[in-house]
Parts: sequence; structure tokens; C-alpha cells
Amino acid sequence: MLVYGKNVARDLLKKNKEVKKIIIQDNFDDKEIISLIEKSKINVKRCSKKEIDHLCSGLHQGIILDIPDYKYYDLHDILQNNEINFVVLLDHLEDPHNLGAIIRTCEAAGVDAIILPKDRQVQLNATVMKTSVGTLNDVKIVSVSNLVNTIEKLKKEGFWVVGTSLENSVDYRMIDYGGKVALIIGNEGSGISSLVEKKCDYLAKIPMYGTTNSLNASVAAGIMIYEVIRNRK
Amino acid sequence: MLVYGKNVARDLLKKNKEVKKIIIQDNFDDKEIISLIEKSKINVKRCSKKEIDHLCSGLHQGIILDIPDYKYYDLHDILQNNEINFVVLLDHLEDPHNLGAIIRTCEAAGVDAIILPKDRQVQLNATVMKTSVGTLNDVKIVSVSNLVNTIEKLKKEGFWVVGTSLENSVDYRMIDYGGKVALIIGNEGSGISSLVEKKCDYLAKIPMYGTTNSLNASVAAGIMIYEVIRNRK
Repeated sequence: MLVYGKNVARDLLKKNKEVKKIIIQDNFDDKEIISLIEKSKINVKRCSKKEIDHLCSGLHQGIILDIPDYKYYDLHDILQNNEINFVVLLDHLEDPHNLGAIIRTCEAAGVDAIILPKDRQVQLNATVMKTSVGTLNDVKIVSVSNLVNTIEKLKKEGFWVVGTSLENSVDYRMIDYGGKVALIIGNEGSGISSLVEKKCDYLAKIPMYGTTNSLNASVAAGIMIYEVIRNRK
Repeated sequence: MLVYGKNVARDLLKKNKEVKKIIIQDNFDDKEIISLIEKSKINVKRCSKKEIDHLCSGLHQGIILDIPDYKYYDLHDILQNNEINFVVLLDHLEDPHNLGAIIRTCEAAGVDAIILPKDRQVQLNATVMKTSVGTLNDVKIVSVSNLVNTIEKLKKEGFWVVGTSLENSVDYRMIDYGGKVALIIGNEGSGISSLVEKKCDYLAKIPMYGTTNSLNASVAAGIMIYEVIRNRK
């Protein structure tokens, strides 16, 4: 996977994460990053701006890193791990900026694992890496074929499943998030799918007082995740 | 100001907001929007995809609307209005997606006004409109030349000023947000500027348990805004 940008580069190099190759622009002159690269002994290639632009459509700031693809965790291992008590499930998110911001929030809040579906869901790409500010490497992520089956497995292991919905839901502050919790974040446009909603033990609602009836998905996720944390830590 | 996209169009037309002109692509066929346009009697121009692409670099979905520029509110009026008790100040945000998501959260949470600086701050453009999902038209926004002077004026009117900071700060849940509150959201990279920080009555910190020490600006804003709301409504 090609990732890019100074923040991502600095973060990966500081944490000594595996980097296969680094491509920097001729005139790249960030002293801190150059010093980190020199210490790392990673293979470096210098290119013209044109060549780098060709490799990457995003704001690369003169540096691209080729890193191994994210190695997903196995659902079975997550379910068997007694230290995993708070997981976040993403129900078919579409926007890589939202996914990156949610991964960043999960890492900061100490969420134990993130579960996302294989299909109809934005995958872990360079934009996600950039908006997660590198935290992608510090969270456990599981990719599953079927979200509904996964929820059933989580329930068997004692997880309480909490979704968000406008209807038939209670104020998010009224729910007890003690014990094992699986929090579901819905799609940006359509929210949580009806099959998933039916599996929820609780449906929560963030109260709104204006004309809009929804928040940005990563903002809603942040409010919900920190509400769970409030009950636990 | 040119704004674009089906969601924004639907929202503006449903709310009967002032639209000077609508430009739609030859083959635009969203029945709901076309019916709203017909009812509105707004001047419509049909164009080729090429012509629309030329007007708008974003994902326009075949529809562009020319609307009046946002009319900022006056700081004096906001200060004199007894019903304005919770304001959010933005300390030089750079990312229009963050600004749009924060405006959306403020509108949903019933924040009374948003104050942003004139310079070195992303302004109200089409991307902000799109990410605010049209809520931009339903919030009171004030543009000021000097954030520090504005904070002094807010304090004279009895506002308690709360900023976020990693240092010399207390857990955000330990602060009493009763009374008049001015919440400051810092820049994505550098946070709240030191001159602004010095004016704060309280510095709050959202606890983090991972390797990162910050959240996405709009996520942090969402968590802080709903914490203030928790204390008030």
C-alpha cells in the first residue's frame, strides 16, 4: 500500500513500522524526516515532482511510503481474547475521511477492536491512513463477510450490542455501557441497516435541537465512543 | 456563491431559501428535486456535463445552485441578545470539511452562534456548505477581525471561556458549563493559539488512552459541544 504525506511518514518512521520503500521528491528538505530515514536504512528513491504526482493523486508533500498492506486480525482471536471488551462495528461506511477519523478516535479512546464488512464499505487505503494520522497501525481491525452473523457471535460471547437510530431509541446518555459493548456506527446516508438494527440490544439517539436530524458519521461516532468510555474508565 | 450536489439542492429548495439561479445537467433526472424546482419558479439553465464540470470541481451530481453569499451576523447584536448563551469560536481552522461538520454539529446541538476570524481561517464556501448538509443557513455566524478582543467582549457580557489544551488542563467532564459559555475549537495542527489560550477561564482535556494525543478537530468539537449541552438541557 502506498501512503503519503509528512505526518504519516514521520509517524511510521518514529514508530519503526515496516516500510518497504520510500520515494521522495528531488528537493524534499524536511530535516527531521530525512534524519529519521537515514537512521532507518530503508531503501530510498528520489524522483521528480512529475513522477511522484503520477504515483499519488493526494497531497503527498513530496514523500510516498510503500508499506505492507494492513494485516487484519482474525475474528475468532478477537472473540476469544478476554481483554477485548469494547468493539466498534462499522455498517458500510463510504467516506474514507470518516473511516480515518473514526479509527483515530478509536485508537485515542482505547477501543479494543474495529470490525468492518468486506463489501460495500470503504477499505483501508492511503486516504484512510492519512486521516487516521497513522493510528491505523495501532488498532486491531477485523474484516468480516457478514455483519449480522458477526453480531450473533459477539452476543454469544456476552457483548451488548448498541446501535444508533432516530426511531424506537433512547437518549444515548440513559444506557448502561458497563460490561462488554459492541457499538455500531451506521452508513453516512442511510444509517444502520434494518437487519443489523434488529440485532441491537439497545438503540441510542443523540438528542438534536435544530433542523437537521443527523450528525457527520465520525462526529456521531466520537460522541458515542466517549459516552461508552465515560461509563467504563 | 455557487453550491452543488443533490442533498444541498433538496435542502435549500425544501426550506424555500433564496436561490438566484439553478444550473442542471442535460440528463438530470432526480424527480423530487425537479418537482421542487418547478414549484419554486427559480430561473433554471440546462448545460452539458462539460460546462457544469467547468463551473465546479466538486462532486456536483448534475446540479449547481447560485445562492446569495452568507450574510454574517453582527457581533454587537449577538452580545446584546439575551437568548444567546452558548457560542462556539473557531481558532483558525484550515479544513473546509471540518468547518462544515462543526457547523452541522452546532446546528444540531442548538449552539446559539459561531464566531470565526476573518483571516487565516477557511471561509464559508461550497465545500463547507456541502459538508454542513445545508445547515449553514440555519446558524448564526459572526466573522471578526480579532479573536482575542472578541473573547474580552464576551467575558464582559458574562461568558465563561473554555478552550481545549493538552497542558494545564482538566478532564472536560469536570467543568461546570452552566451559565453563558464560549467554547473555543483550535486549529487542526497547532490547536488553540497561545494568546487565545491565555484568555481562557478553563482549559479542558479529552482523555486519551492510545498513542495519539489528538482527535480530528470536528470530532473533538462534537464531544465538547455535547458535553456542554449535557450540562444545560
